[in-house]
Amino acid sequence: MSNPTAAMIVIGDEILSGRTRDSNLNFLAKELTRHGIDLREARVISDDKDAIVSAVKDLSGRVDHLFTSGGIGPTHDDITADCVAEAFGDHIDIRDDARDLLMGYFNSRGVEATEGRMRMARIPDSAELIENPVSIAPGFTIQNVHVMAGVPAVFEAMVATVLSKIEGGTPLLSQSHRVERPEGEVAGPLRILADKYPDLSIGSYPFNDKGVFGTNVVIRGHDGAQVDAAMVALCQEFPD
Amino acid sequence: MSNPTAAMIVIGDEILSGRTRDSNLNFLAKELTRHGIDLREARVISDDKDAIVSAVKDLSGRVDHLFTSGGIGPTHDDITADCVAEAFGDHIDIRDDARDLLMGYFNSRGVEATEGRMRMARIPDSAELIENPVSIAPGFTIQNVHVMAGVPAVFEAMVATVLSKIEGGTPLLSQSHRVERPEGEVAGPLRILADKYPDLSIGSYPFNDKGVFGTNVVIRGHDGAQVDAAMVALCQEFPD
Repeated sequence: MSNPTAAMIVIGDEILSGRTRDSNLNFLAKELTRHGIDLREARVISDDKDAIVSAVKDLSGRVDHLFTSGGIGPTHDDITADCVAEAFGDHIDIRDDARDLLMGYFNSRGVEATEGRMRMARIPDSAELIENPVSIAPGFTIQNVHVMAGVPAVFEAMVATVLSKIEGGTPLLSQSHRVERPEGEVAGPLRILADKYPDLSIGSYPFNDKGVFGTNVVIRGHDGAQVDAAMVALCQEFPD
Repeated sequence: MSNPTAAMIVIGDEILSGRTRDSNLNFLAKELTRHGIDLREARVISDDKDAIVSAVKDLSGRVDHLFTSGGIGPTHDDITADCVAEAFGDHIDIRDDARDLLMGYFNSRGVEATEGRMRMARIPDSAELIENPVSIAPGFTIQNVHVMAGVPAVFEAMVATVLSKIEGGTPLLSQSHRVERPEGEVAGPLRILADKYPDLSIGSYPFNDKGVFGTNVVIRGHDGAQVDAAMVALCQEFPD
């Protein structure tokens, strides 16, 4: 049985202008790998309605789980929730459960419930809330789309919640071997190995360590015996 | 006149598994912003033929310039050049000019011209080479697609070469203002400002500085007088 698949959409002009360096993709990628879920694609798009609606429609139809990051805050350019509702033809407005969460939080802190802040209670009718233990304003899951905040601390907490509820797959096993020869000399034997083990992913990562040009070879797969066998063959070829 | 548009494709299983943290997107985003080219979308995809061919076809038809990063090294999973050739229906093989570059480099260093290394001379017939001052193996431009290496030092050098040859636009002007009030209280006035200046992009970035919750507001646009006027209005609203 093959593993569940996933895709990610990072939403924000500030990433595409270079002002902000995204860290959520790398965090999610590592977590999905640990849970045996294959991340197939990630897209960074702008705070633009058409871009968000079409990316959500396209990717949610091609993977088991789509994760989004960004655009659910209090300001005018936070339009992700409305766009996701539109992509699924669902109605969206301020929802009682989300409003209660926010009002409880605001009242306990003497914070004013501005119109902007209350926008964070806009949740599609059929969605299930995702808890935000950091700053209360929830994310939500609608069908196979998990809509989460862009602020890394909040995003990471929401990922933990979502991953505790969805079924993972066989974790990807990984072994690596350091070869003190440049990638161009390792490439030939690696191709033969890759042909012999079509179910494994064999990656090579060149390095320059104090003038020594070498290659870290990483063998990944879901079948431990195959990974072991390929690693033995690799070490025979490059004993180092 | 509106600015040229761009998209980026980052190719590599190692980014999607979380093993490697991409830095090329942020570098390219900043450089494009400086050159007045609007980066509309970035995609991270795996070393998979169908994924690469379809992303190249899709994005190259929607923007003025498409930049790719990764998958042009010597190993079996470096398939970007062949996939880009296929996307444009162009013939690809080891090309004389690229082979001469590589052989000169290998001979001068006593490096063996392995089959893997010579794969780096595979260039589509109609492409123009992009110089690689770091490790010689060239990138290439075919139609509006610039195919570059994933190794950051090489990628960055290739971006500099490409950007020196293509026409930029009006650089995006940017001014920022620090407001010591949380985003939820800034959101209302910002929406009014955004409605008044539809050609400007007004972004807000919450911060927590030693217990002070505040918001950095960034106003961006191509018209300096408009950016100035909006910034004056913002500072009147939030004098701080």
